[in-house]
Amino acid sequence: MYTPYPTAQSEDIGVRVERFVRDVVFPYEQDPRRTAHGPSDELVQELRAKARHAGVLTPHILDDGSHLTQMETAAVLQRSGLSPLGPVALNTMAPDEGNMYLLGKVATPEQKSRFLDALTAGRARSAFFMTEPADEGGAGSDPGMLRTTAVPDGPDWVINGRKLFITGADGASVGIVMARTGQEQGIKATMFLVELPNPAIRIERVLDTLDSSMPGGHAQVLIEDLRVPSSQVLGQVDEGFHYAQVRLSPARLSHCMRWLGAASRAHEIASAYAVKRTAFGKPLIDHEGVGFMLADNLIDLQQSALMIDWCAGVLDSGSLATTESSMAKVAVSDALFRVADRCVQVMGGRGVSGDTVVEQVFREIRAFRIYDGPTEVHKWSLAKKIKRKALGRQA
Amino acid sequence: MYTPYPTAQSEDIGVRVERFVRDVVFPYEQDPRRTAHGPSDELVQELRAKARHAGVLTPHILDDGSHLTQMETAAVLQRSGLSPLGPVALNTMAPDEGNMYLLGKVATPEQKSRFLDALTAGRARSAFFMTEPADEGGAGSDPGMLRTTAVPDGPDWVINGRKLFITGADGASVGIVMARTGQEQGIKATMFLVELPNPAIRIERVLDTLDSSMPGGHAQVLIEDLRVPSSQVLGQVDEGFHYAQVRLSPARLSHCMRWLGAASRAHEIASAYAVKRTAFGKPLIDHEGVGFMLADNLIDLQQSALMIDWCAGVLDSGSLATTESSMAKVAVSDALFRVADRCVQVMGGRGVSGDTVVEQVFREIRAFRIYDGPTEVHKWSLAKKIKRKALGRQA
Amino acid sequence: MYTPYPTAQSEDIGVRVERFVRDVVFPYEQDPRRTAHGPSDELVQELRAKARHAGVLTPHILDDGSHLTQMETAAVLQRSGLSPLGPVALNTMAPDEGNMYLLGKVATPEQKSRFLDALTAGRARSAFFMTEPADEGGAGSDPGMLRTTAVPDGPDWVINGRKLFITGADGASVGIVMARTGQEQGIKATMFLVELPNPAIRIERVLDTLDSSMPGGHAQVLIEDLRVPSSQVLGQVDEGFHYAQVRLSPARLSHCMRWLGAASRAHEIASAYAVKRTAFGKPLIDHEGVGFMLADNLIDLQQSALMIDWCAGVLDSGSLATTESSMAKVAVSDALFRVADRCVQVMGGRGVSGDTVVEQVFREIRAFRIYDGPTEVHKWSLAKKIKRKALGRQA
Amino acid sequence: MYTPYPTAQSEDIGVRVERFVRDVVFPYEQDPRRTAHGPSDELVQELRAKARHAGVLTPHILDDGSHLTQMETAAVLQRSGLSPLGPVALNTMAPDEGNMYLLGKVATPEQKSRFLDALTAGRARSAFFMTEPADEGGAGSDPGMLRTTAVPDGPDWVINGRKLFITGADGASVGIVMARTGQEQGIKATMFLVELPNPAIRIERVLDTLDSSMPGGHAQVLIEDLRVPSSQVLGQVDEGFHYAQVRLSPARLSHCMRWLGAASRAHEIASAYAVKRTAFGKPLIDHEGVGFMLADNLIDLQQSALMIDWCAGVLDSGSLATTESSMAKVAVSDALFRVADRCVQVMGGRGVSGDTVVEQVFREIRAFRIYDGPTEVHKWSLAKKIKRKALGRQA
Repeated sequence: MYTPYPTAQSEDIGVRVERFVRDVVFPYEQDPRRTAHGPSDELVQELRAKARHAGVLTPHILDDGSHLTQMETAAVLQRSGLSPLGPVALNTMAPDEGNMYLLGKVATPEQKSRFLDALTAGRARSAFFMTEPADEGGAGSDPGMLRTTAVPDGPDWVINGRKLFITGADGASVGIVMARTGQEQGIKATMFLVELPNPAIRIERVLDTLDSSMPGGHAQVLIEDLRVPSSQVLGQVDEGFHYAQVRLSPARLSHCMRWLGAASRAHEIASAYAVKRTAFGKPLIDHEGVGFMLADNLIDLQQSALMIDWCAGVLDSGSLATTESSMAKVAVSDALFRVADRCVQVMGGRGVSGDTVVEQVFREIRAFRIYDGPTEVHKWSLAKKIKRKALGRQA
Repeated sequence: MYTPYPTAQSEDIGVRVERFVRDVVFPYEQDPRRTAHGPSDELVQELRAKARHAGVLTPHILDDGSHLTQMETAAVLQRSGLSPLGPVALNTMAPDEGNMYLLGKVATPEQKSRFLDALTAGRARSAFFMTEPADEGGAGSDPGMLRTTAVPDGPDWVINGRKLFITGADGASVGIVMARTGQEQGIKATMFLVELPNPAIRIERVLDTLDSSMPGGHAQVLIEDLRVPSSQVLGQVDEGFHYAQVRLSPARLSHCMRWLGAASRAHEIASAYAVKRTAFGKPLIDHEGVGFMLADNLIDLQQSALMIDWCAGVLDSGSLATTESSMAKVAVSDALFRVADRCVQVMGGRGVSGDTVVEQVFREIRAFRIYDGPTEVHKWSLAKKIKRKALGRQA
Repeated sequence: MYTPYPTAQSEDIGVRVERFVRDVVFPYEQDPRRTAHGPSDELVQELRAKARHAGVLTPHILDDGSHLTQMETAAVLQRSGLSPLGPVALNTMAPDEGNMYLLGKVATPEQKSRFLDALTAGRARSAFFMTEPADEGGAGSDPGMLRTTAVPDGPDWVINGRKLFITGADGASVGIVMARTGQEQGIKATMFLVELPNPAIRIERVLDTLDSSMPGGHAQVLIEDLRVPSSQVLGQVDEGFHYAQVRLSPARLSHCMRWLGAASRAHEIASAYAVKRTAFGKPLIDHEGVGFMLADNLIDLQQSALMIDWCAGVLDSGSLATTESSMAKVAVSDALFRVADRCVQVMGGRGVSGDTVVEQVFREIRAFRIYDGPTEVHKWSLAKKIKRKALGRQA
Repeated sequence: MYTPYPTAQSEDIGVRVERFVRDVVFPYEQDPRRTAHGPSDELVQELRAKARHAGVLTPHILDDGSHLTQMETAAVLQRSGLSPLGPVALNTMAPDEGNMYLLGKVATPEQKSRFLDALTAGRARSAFFMTEPADEGGAGSDPGMLRTTAVPDGPDWVINGRKLFITGADGASVGIVMARTGQEQGIKATMFLVELPNPAIRIERVLDTLDSSMPGGHAQVLIEDLRVPSSQVLGQVDEGFHYAQVRLSPARLSHCMRWLGAASRAHEIASAYAVKRTAFGKPLIDHEGVGFMLADNLIDLQQSALMIDWCAGVLDSGSLATTESSMAKVAVSDALFRVADRCVQVMGGRGVSGDTVVEQVFREIRAFRIYDGPTEVHKWSLAKKIKRKALGRQA
């Protein structure tokens, strides 16, 4: 891997994680229980049992409930991502990783014991109900368009709306639902904790998508008269957008971490292929057309690792790192896609086949350029910041 | 579509083809009989029955057996490609289109009646057994590495070898097998016609691949002691590489034609999405970040159409067009991939979902950058030609 | 060169033009009379005398005053562009080529005899006073911001304003001045013909720019109380924007033509260098890292030629070709810049030196991505057209 | 600027350097004493006198002769690069910076007093005579082709050869000459210190090049029977390639540092322009087509800064950092060129004019993609390293 361990603690965990992924998870990569909507629950449980036994389950959260720093998390999560099955096996996957992080920051002790502990123990999965169908005018990339509503009714709240692209909803035990609250000017939102399945939360369909690593896939969900007691409000009423911000940058960055691992793996496979395969009289890698692609990979992987560590450092300093995580997300998702694309190309026919994970990594990372905010939305917000800075300099 | 019809004949056919694809084929695009290895044979037959009835089956070959010019073919095949199911429905798909072309040029009347007629009538499918597993040292991108052998044995030939990436082998009725013949210096090869299935041609497995439009998928095949009578030699013994050249450029160009149609369709869908969907207060297309991507599409599509027509014109002039088809293949596959990638990006979450064909078009065209010679192999041969020309100028 | 001659007439002219440029113009390429603001007038006259003698001066306008078709013009102007000095030597350069075209279309017989004949004969140069300093709120890329005014005063017009980036103004004998007229709603403009130099048109400075091929460079000009009689109105009053449209696409396309020649030449020089120079044990061109760049050049040059011919054909059909010339300008300027950039890179240290014209071609084509409308303005207008088309399809 | 100061010492120096460059150097940027071959010696001395007075001359070497760490140097040299005149003014420019570094590491006390002290004091300039004309078969990008020879003759050495692209040779007082020594197998080389000018070192010509920031430009030099006493051998005989390695990575990285400053400045100017200028009804920066380019700049600048700091850290750990500096050089030169190119594009006509330094920064950084090893040579050596690693993994 490309980045050193920032601390002895992260090295100890990281080395064990990498060994587990290589020794135990890699052999599962052709397992028939992998489906178009992610590994089956049976496969997930089988992998997690082994991770639990190896002491590497949920490796970024320590036994006392404390969380690794973001710099340490980066070193560990990258290694968990070396296989598309790694994050699932180790419980470092999205959206659970982000949900655990958020609950760790905001939930009450009672809420933690009811909703968080099973997640940390890898016994349950969770979903984050935020995105809405854009064709109905809801919140796609633009959270200001949130349409799902929560209305107080006695001691409870009643929630109605439709959600789209809800990763892992199918099969989840814990849900965090984001809904509009507050009548006054300005848009306010609140987060609610719910147990799943729930008859008021109906999975209308699970989408077929380019990616296929996440258990439960991505669902379209109809919420009809979901009744939630006040005790299940996460944090404060009307503070949902703030908590979304708290969750946002670390969750976004953890995507970068895992996919850096995946792209590194693809590069490893493509390099091995290029030294073994011969064409036109010499190993592929001795053709500059191939060697230069792998050299470009090396640079893109290194730059991705540096962007992740830089953003992690900013987060560890206490900042929300909104700008930094936008920059990291754009740079890393684009760079890793180039890496994956080159790996496919280097491997020719084998690269587009499922014989190695390269083909899947390519699909996963293509989707990553859209998930958690498409590149264009981030550039749009970066341009606004450049504008403010340039105007400030003139004033 | 982006290019005019070169003749009245092509316009008549092209208009009918486009209408059929839009009216009849589009509604099948979510049909559950589409599999990871292409549409099922039942679905293929159902579509073809409708095409036959509409008089658009095998539209590039006229009733008298004559073939449209390449310029005319371009205008027709592009339109057949507007749906991923279009080429299958109209019998303009690979590898059958190229196989029919080759048989039309080289086969004897008896061979035509036995092997070609059922293909032209759309009642059978065919496969072209050329590519070999590169990890066994066989012919991947480098045909000089051909390892399958055909040995004369009395009036027959006996063929042994392994083939990989044999599109449509599973379910095909007609096969063209390429094997080494000739003991002397230099590599010679011969093509053989065979009926399928055949116990000596065993499908070891059908690969899972990024693309999914071709019936039968791509197979790995073991040929063991396949006995073929001399009457089934296609053309002359030892002339296999020459026939491969004859088939090569038109077949390669027909890929460009079909996929230009597919990318045009993706652009059409993405443009429709961009005028309908709103984000941050205005339609997506009014965001330059989106509008510029669609403008780039327009240019890439136009350039692809022009490259195809230029190469078709060279072929129609009687040239083998090896250089021109290499240039067209590289330029068009790269340009259409950019188009498909931008369409996915414009459509965000919907772009990576199977809700429209954009997601499939993206996968198909990614594979196209490798199929029929990866970009790098073509650039390698173009560089050789530049060298010869530059040396010639100096002499 | 990359495109065939569309007619025997264009072949006759084109062959002679190419021979003249190669034999006569190339030897002047290190002439010390080349300055940062283009070749000196002495050098221009010396070259033109030779072109006149060789019968290739103003080759796109025939002796009877008729103009080659755009398809024919493309074949000829590309060849004139093989040297950065070629268009100047042959009188096919901007802005004169476009000015001659416009006067040929719109000027009265008297105006032609007074303003056009000397241009066609290559005895005089001209300038087109349209662009204004954007920092003063004038018309840069956005013609709707035109601020220079022409006010009627008896039988005359009095013009005031400042113009920027007026190519060739320094040393020109003929000027076409664009100014706002018409008080009512909507912006109207009128074109005026003037003889130069004129005390009311003061050249404030000639800009130092990246490019250096155009005689007189690019000037900033102050127009103060310029009095012009009505007889010097070009065409009709208030029709200036329409005439600008008439001139626009052919002038823009002629840029593409000339620069295609220049980039072809750079590719020729770089290819010759790559077969002659050795590094790491073999000729540069045998390194795929170099050979692939030259292969990419071949494709980019071919695509540029095809885009130019396509747009020329649309113009020849009678269309204003606004969309097509936008597409051609964006595609060709970007493609040729990539070509020039690769040629510099292939030649290493020599590529950034003035020892060959590659370095100048690189600078010229960089500027071309901005001149005649930056890429972004064209994409913006293309996006608008895509929007209209997509909305039309829905209606 | 984009990176924090690693130490209090670097912050103290860096803040003063940046203030000096902004306050004192910026106003000289239109000074007519800037020539195509860099600022005149008069201008250099005028600037250095001010830097000396401000206490910021040679800021990376402390009064006691010690050198800042590479991490600290990065923070300081980036700021010196904010103006194309900055490195010259502050004596942080190439090749002097690298020459001082090398002499500091290898020279004897006598050599330091004779050759280094005047350099550190900014009273003299130096040149590094290594590169040779590739068309004569000498060492361009491939040092193994070194042809200049040094032959022992009594206590002296006699050197003969031709050198090309010798930056700053014209006007230098100190030269380091690299020549082949050692007859046996394998190529050996030795470095020699010489005072300049020297009648045996004839400047045949100074090249006209795309870049224009370096005093003395880039010269072609003929060395004929140059006699050098043994006392002027730098370090050990036959160790020239080793010392070249010692100089290589820090010198290469210092290019990255200075040009990061230059590109940051260009981005600053382009951003200021984009908020001030209006087109089509709003400030340029509110057009996503412009805003996205500036957002891409932000990311490219950040990634460049991170690559520089990473490589500096590796150097500070005692490594030669050959791989890391190759990666940094490729990534940074390509990224900064994209930044400069976008700045030109954002500024339109003004971007290609000399009215701001953006035009010069564009030219300088284009050359940087070739100087100190073209991108392709670095990728070639990176591919070799990937090969070794992949083979090692298999073993």
